[in-house]
Amino acid sequence: MPEKVVIIGGGAAGPKTAAKLRRENKKIQIDLYTQEDIISYSACGLPYYIEDIIKDSKTLIVRTPADFEKENINIHLKQKCIKVDTDNKKVILEDLTSNHKYEVYYDILVLATGAIPIIPDIKGINLKNIFSLRTIEDGIKIKQKMRTSQNAVLLGGGYISIEVMEALVHNKLNVTLIEKNNQILKMFDEDFSQMITDYIIGHNIGKVNIFTNEEVIEFVGNENNEITKVITKSGKEIETDFVVLGTGVRPNTDFLAGSNIKLSINNSIKVNKTMGTSKTNVYAVGDCTDNFNLITNKETWLPMGSTANKEGRCAAINIAGGDCSFDGILNSTITKYFNYTISIIGISYKEALIQGFQPEFAIVTKRDKAGYMPDTGTVTLKLIVDKNTHNILGIQGIGEGDVNQRINTVIPAILEKTKLESFMNLDLPYSPPYSPAIDPVLNAAQIIYQKICN
Amino acid sequence: MPEKVVIIGGGAAGPKTAAKLRRENKKIQIDLYTQEDIISYSACGLPYYIEDIIKDSKTLIVRTPADFEKENINIHLKQKCIKVDTDNKKVILEDLTSNHKYEVYYDILVLATGAIPIIPDIKGINLKNIFSLRTIEDGIKIKQKMRTSQNAVLLGGGYISIEVMEALVHNKLNVTLIEKNNQILKMFDEDFSQMITDYIIGHNIGKVNIFTNEEVIEFVGNENNEITKVITKSGKEIETDFVVLGTGVRPNTDFLAGSNIKLSINNSIKVNKTMGTSKTNVYAVGDCTDNFNLITNKETWLPMGSTANKEGRCAAINIAGGDCSFDGILNSTITKYFNYTISIIGISYKEALIQGFQPEFAIVTKRDKAGYMPDTGTVTLKLIVDKNTHNILGIQGIGEGDVNQRINTVIPAILEKTKLESFMNLDLPYSPPYSPAIDPVLNAAQIIYQKICN
Repeated sequence: MPEKVVIIGGGAAGPKTAAKLRRENKKIQIDLYTQEDIISYSACGLPYYIEDIIKDSKTLIVRTPADFEKENINIHLKQKCIKVDTDNKKVILEDLTSNHKYEVYYDILVLATGAIPIIPDIKGINLKNIFSLRTIEDGIKIKQKMRTSQNAVLLGGGYISIEVMEALVHNKLNVTLIEKNNQILKMFDEDFSQMITDYIIGHNIGKVNIFTNEEVIEFVGNENNEITKVITKSGKEIETDFVVLGTGVRPNTDFLAGSNIKLSINNSIKVNKTMGTSKTNVYAVGDCTDNFNLITNKETWLPMGSTANKEGRCAAINIAGGDCSFDGILNSTITKYFNYTISIIGISYKEALIQGFQPEFAIVTKRDKAGYMPDTGTVTLKLIVDKNTHNILGIQGIGEGDVNQRINTVIPAILEKTKLESFMNLDLPYSPPYSPAIDPVLNAAQIIYQKICN
Repeated sequence: MPEKVVIIGGGAAGPKTAAKLRRENKKIQIDLYTQEDIISYSACGLPYYIEDIIKDSKTLIVRTPADFEKENINIHLKQKCIKVDTDNKKVILEDLTSNHKYEVYYDILVLATGAIPIIPDIKGINLKNIFSLRTIEDGIKIKQKMRTSQNAVLLGGGYISIEVMEALVHNKLNVTLIEKNNQILKMFDEDFSQMITDYIIGHNIGKVNIFTNEEVIEFVGNENNEITKVITKSGKEIETDFVVLGTGVRPNTDFLAGSNIKLSINNSIKVNKTMGTSKTNVYAVGDCTDNFNLITNKETWLPMGSTANKEGRCAAINIAGGDCSFDGILNSTITKYFNYTISIIGISYKEALIQGFQPEFAIVTKRDKAGYMPDTGTVTLKLIVDKNTHNILGIQGIGEGDVNQRINTVIPAILEKTKLESFMNLDLPYSPPYSPAIDPVLNAAQIIYQKICN
């Protein structure tokens, strides 16, 4: 059993590792270092804080440093890890207040440094009121600025931009989203991306613009260096009070240069199923690690708070001498735009082609309850099946109805490589307030069966 | 290819078989006989019609005889099948209007005669205003009577009684439910049954009584032979304006006596995975057939509209020369009491013991969204895992939160005998409006893992 565990990083995975490790073992020394001045908060909740559904940013904090200290876990705020020396089992840290550098020895090291925003190299990027959204401080700044603004520009068409768009539209701002690809939400097939775009535009006429195949080439400021407009490649000039960068994140692993800890896709840390790295006694968890995609059997990188929590838990069990295997992910994601659910699990049709599958698909649009019930909503589902193996590969789901229920039904089926023939007759519970007699997700399976088995 | 298919029964499975068969084959002659004067309706919707959420009983009709005639399917109403002669490939029918008996020959026979209410042998059972609830006519009678009533008694504590209770409470009646067993909803474990009982009583104080371990020994009527009170074994005298019998149903198969078609549990018709019976050229679908339980690998009988639809579809594909296998069921059921979801999938802890498993369980009560989001609801889940194999055996779920999403996640896992270790780290999509970072159903799995793997 190790005597001293050092954890670097205070977002989700690091604190989870610390808390679980303490539950598993009361004696082990646990020291957690983070460059931020708070720990253990939900970054995923920031858009809802900006929207003002959540009034107080403190609500997003899961556990305070004091909570950890009570559990005899030592929390070191504003301490940045600048180097890892695995040969000598030590890390070099910098106190961000005093700039003092010092060494800390470990028996076991856990890297949980998360991800950091990618800042695009565009003229004027350093103007005031151009924000990333990663920390609570970012969220507070955006919310403050929003309250006195009328116009906003969102760069990039990922989930974060959709969530921030809801927040801003709800607060009566005019919002322009600019995406350089030919579709927003690039993990979706083009048809679904287009339906999502149409929904957003259709439900906020005059308030929202979405420009795809478009790039910002310059941010223009006023005499106070505050942004006033963006200029695009196609020549649009869009006035704005602020910009939120949704241009992606990357693993926060620059400090590992020279450490001989093996990196993987996107410079994420290569981990095995026990959350161990290429170096003995060094674990890595959360957004800074690579992920194993259980459908393609390839490395991928998909930073998610849920994965971070599971990985932290798993690493803690293993450090404490237990046996936990985190096998991989299914690329499961979900978000909402007001009452409209947007979700994809597994892989899209286009990705299935790229990965060498022979995909077939069905799209169904159905009511989510028995047709005669009041307050039904519609769900649109796209189920993807491999024609060779009949395995279910993925599902995309959108709509104001209960999409969530349907996509969840598919998840273990993708994991278990359930055959279409079995899935089609799956015994989903039926009652008129919950579904039609044949659930929409089974309808989709039946249609694919007709296509490929007849 | 057969030339003439005769279908007996007009509820859900028979019409489904007819409609699907016509889509598969345009030429085959299809004749459907039913003893009722309507076909193709949703009996599951009747409680919501009584509640008056659905205003018009016609809304429950999926397809009219005219719809079928347009598809060149011959519908014969009020024709009762009284005998099947498989040696001579004919059925004996009776015209319920004229009482004329006649024979009809078939190439393929499909039995879809459904289930009929069990009428308990209690003194006074023939009094007026003692109703079963199986047909639309039953629903209309109960709704009419409800409108002028103040008190009602429900016999039996199954799903139907819970649904009718909602209907009556919503219409401001005082309702007493009487159940002879020691708990309502006997497929649930006692702890969950008790929580459900507590919820129902707690949310309708003064309007609802639930008496378990209690039996009605006499229905007492007035001079017009209308029921006025029930007398129970323990000596209670309960005044009531009407009674709804929720005392169960049985397969409608008495007419098969002497046919040599093999019967199964509860006198349901024994079917194989193609929906064929023991006699060549005779299929059976819907509530009149037995079911194969994929967890216990035993015959069971669980009449469900969803299963009926799948079986009808499957039989039609096979009759048309295709290849469809309906492998079995997972005992999936769900209902609601106002905003409170009640669901069980797979088998309970007590049933797992009876079936020779070595079950372990965990019960969790959690919020259904990230804790900091507004409008969270709670879900209470009981997950059952076999200690020997680590296979997931079942889940019970109740609560005002999104129970549905969680239980659906478990269904393919039960089908596929997913190990606890895999399920515990299942990649469920996470976003604060949809779940905590670790979903409650995964929490339950983690707790069982701690119990049996440490």
